[in-house]
Amino acid sequence: MADNPIIALDAMGGDFGPRVIVPAAALVLKEKPDARLILVGQQDAIKEQIALHGLQLSENLQIHHAAEIVAMDEAPAQALRKKKDSSMRVAINLVHEGRANAVVSAGNTGALMATAKFVLKTLPGIDRPALMTTLPSLMGHTHMLDLGANVDVGANHLFQFAVMGSITAAAVDNIENPRVGLLNVGSEAMKGNAQVKAAEPLLQNSGLNYIGFVEGDDIFTGDVDVVVCDGFVGNVSLKSAEGVAKMITQLMKEEFTRNWLTRLVGLAAMPILKAFRKRVDHRAYNGASLLGLRDIAIKSHGGADAYAFSNAIKVAMLEVEKSLPQRIEKHLETLLEKESA
Amino acid sequence: MADNPIIALDAMGGDFGPRVIVPAAALVLKEKPDARLILVGQQDAIKEQIALHGLQLSENLQIHHAAEIVAMDEAPAQALRKKKDSSMRVAINLVHEGRANAVVSAGNTGALMATAKFVLKTLPGIDRPALMTTLPSLMGHTHMLDLGANVDVGANHLFQFAVMGSITAAAVDNIENPRVGLLNVGSEAMKGNAQVKAAEPLLQNSGLNYIGFVEGDDIFTGDVDVVVCDGFVGNVSLKSAEGVAKMITQLMKEEFTRNWLTRLVGLAAMPILKAFRKRVDHRAYNGASLLGLRDIAIKSHGGADAYAFSNAIKVAMLEVEKSLPQRIEKHLETLLEKESA
Repeated sequence: MADNPIIALDAMGGDFGPRVIVPAAALVLKEKPDARLILVGQQDAIKEQIALHGLQLSENLQIHHAAEIVAMDEAPAQALRKKKDSSMRVAINLVHEGRANAVVSAGNTGALMATAKFVLKTLPGIDRPALMTTLPSLMGHTHMLDLGANVDVGANHLFQFAVMGSITAAAVDNIENPRVGLLNVGSEAMKGNAQVKAAEPLLQNSGLNYIGFVEGDDIFTGDVDVVVCDGFVGNVSLKSAEGVAKMITQLMKEEFTRNWLTRLVGLAAMPILKAFRKRVDHRAYNGASLLGLRDIAIKSHGGADAYAFSNAIKVAMLEVEKSLPQRIEKHLETLLEKESA
Repeated sequence: MADNPIIALDAMGGDFGPRVIVPAAALVLKEKPDARLILVGQQDAIKEQIALHGLQLSENLQIHHAAEIVAMDEAPAQALRKKKDSSMRVAINLVHEGRANAVVSAGNTGALMATAKFVLKTLPGIDRPALMTTLPSLMGHTHMLDLGANVDVGANHLFQFAVMGSITAAAVDNIENPRVGLLNVGSEAMKGNAQVKAAEPLLQNSGLNYIGFVEGDDIFTGDVDVVVCDGFVGNVSLKSAEGVAKMITQLMKEEFTRNWLTRLVGLAAMPILKAFRKRVDHRAYNGASLLGLRDIAIKSHGGADAYAFSNAIKVAMLEVEKSLPQRIEKHLETLLEKESA
């Protein structure tokens, strides 16, 4: 393995393809000139963007040609079977062949999940990879999984998510015993659905720093490091939070642009509003990890801009530095030994 | 039935009991002097607050004594069996006996659900009442159910929620064919969990204005009038939205109070920030309906202040005016006839 991690970028993925991926690579190289990035995709389109941004190909910025593109709405099974020369597939292959240490894609989520699972394989004890992201909180950030990869899960899957989430948070945040919470509903009569009730004892006996049930609002307080839930709930929670944040931003904009007086005040308040926006900028949190694979794969938001995509690349670099899959595998081995003992 | 609706208020419920419920009643009477409110609970405690707020008992503001109180953390079954003279139970009884047209309580949600179901009974075809609330959106507001009353539900329950939600939105918003959406996850490989997939054809053939799947962020855009989901997902979605809104408010406050200069700008921006806050003030949306009962029961947030609780009373008055349970019953009868036909 090289001293500096090699990251394969699916240059054709996402809503904008190389128009975003190439300048994102440039942003990363500006900050980390030793990084080694491989742009995978149609070389003419990539070269055009490289020229447009005044970049030079080098050991740190390479192109690996791939002729096909997985469409954003293509059926995952179709992409997996038919698009063997797609930028997504070839980028994943590079990781499998040891020619890259991680892959980052803003492409079709389902196709990425299916292809990554097929090519890279899951770790022993893991049924399907889970999607984990980082969200801002009052005290810093919170990790949350699953976010949509697994919608019908049992208690044992929630347990797997908790283990993988805890190891990841410990590694990337340099904390010893991340607080793990199980997402549940509030003060209702029947607390929790069937899976959550069944997962509770597993987590209590897991050896993790399990702090019990948490509710939707706890994600943003900083009182928990890893929030565990099924993919359906996680996806709805994340999108609800995004939706309300967008609405608030829009309503605030409306109030500040209501008339010339409010516009004037808005002008004076601009640096404050900018500082505020920076703290809740979702682009800073772009890059969800596909956990449970033998290698590192990062999913970027499809609509990411260059800044957002550059953050997804950095997530990949950090996970390579921390040898995340190896850490998770080691922990799972211990758990599986315990079970069979 | 009286010309003006009679609302029974659980005066001991919630975090603050009569200290909030009595001034809330006063707020309603100030705006609607013809309203008829019955304060149910310990009469000494209620009278103390009536005196404190300089109010007079009258035909419009009465006290109905009840000696016991259901604790906020009491087991619902326990409250139902043992607390037969609680303010909550007696207020519900008044509705059952036809002495009030609706009940409003900020008390223990589980106990309220269980007691209301036991005393008031559900409508034919409804298994359990659902909890529905209104949320702000960019275009006005959105109705959402279930919010935690039912955590393990099947497709038929989601269908019942859709029917009840549609009728309610049509009645209270005076719109003809409310757009009904089924909450689902995004562009993932396996779209939807088992219940959602099974509910989809039921909704397509329901005769409702069913617009298909919606995602968490659609709740706040104004593109849908009624969002249908199971209680687990609904509760997490609502709490996640609340959590991120609270975080955003807190971070904005931090930026505006960072130093004397930002404080000065904050002072100038005060009217704008106030106007903005008013538009996202969750107190304006207090009052969730227990739908599917033979009578009207409204759940207020436990931590509601007088303004928030007064809005829950107004929700009750509106539903009485619209004869909501009768409307729902009529529609359900038609559906049941169709099924058996």
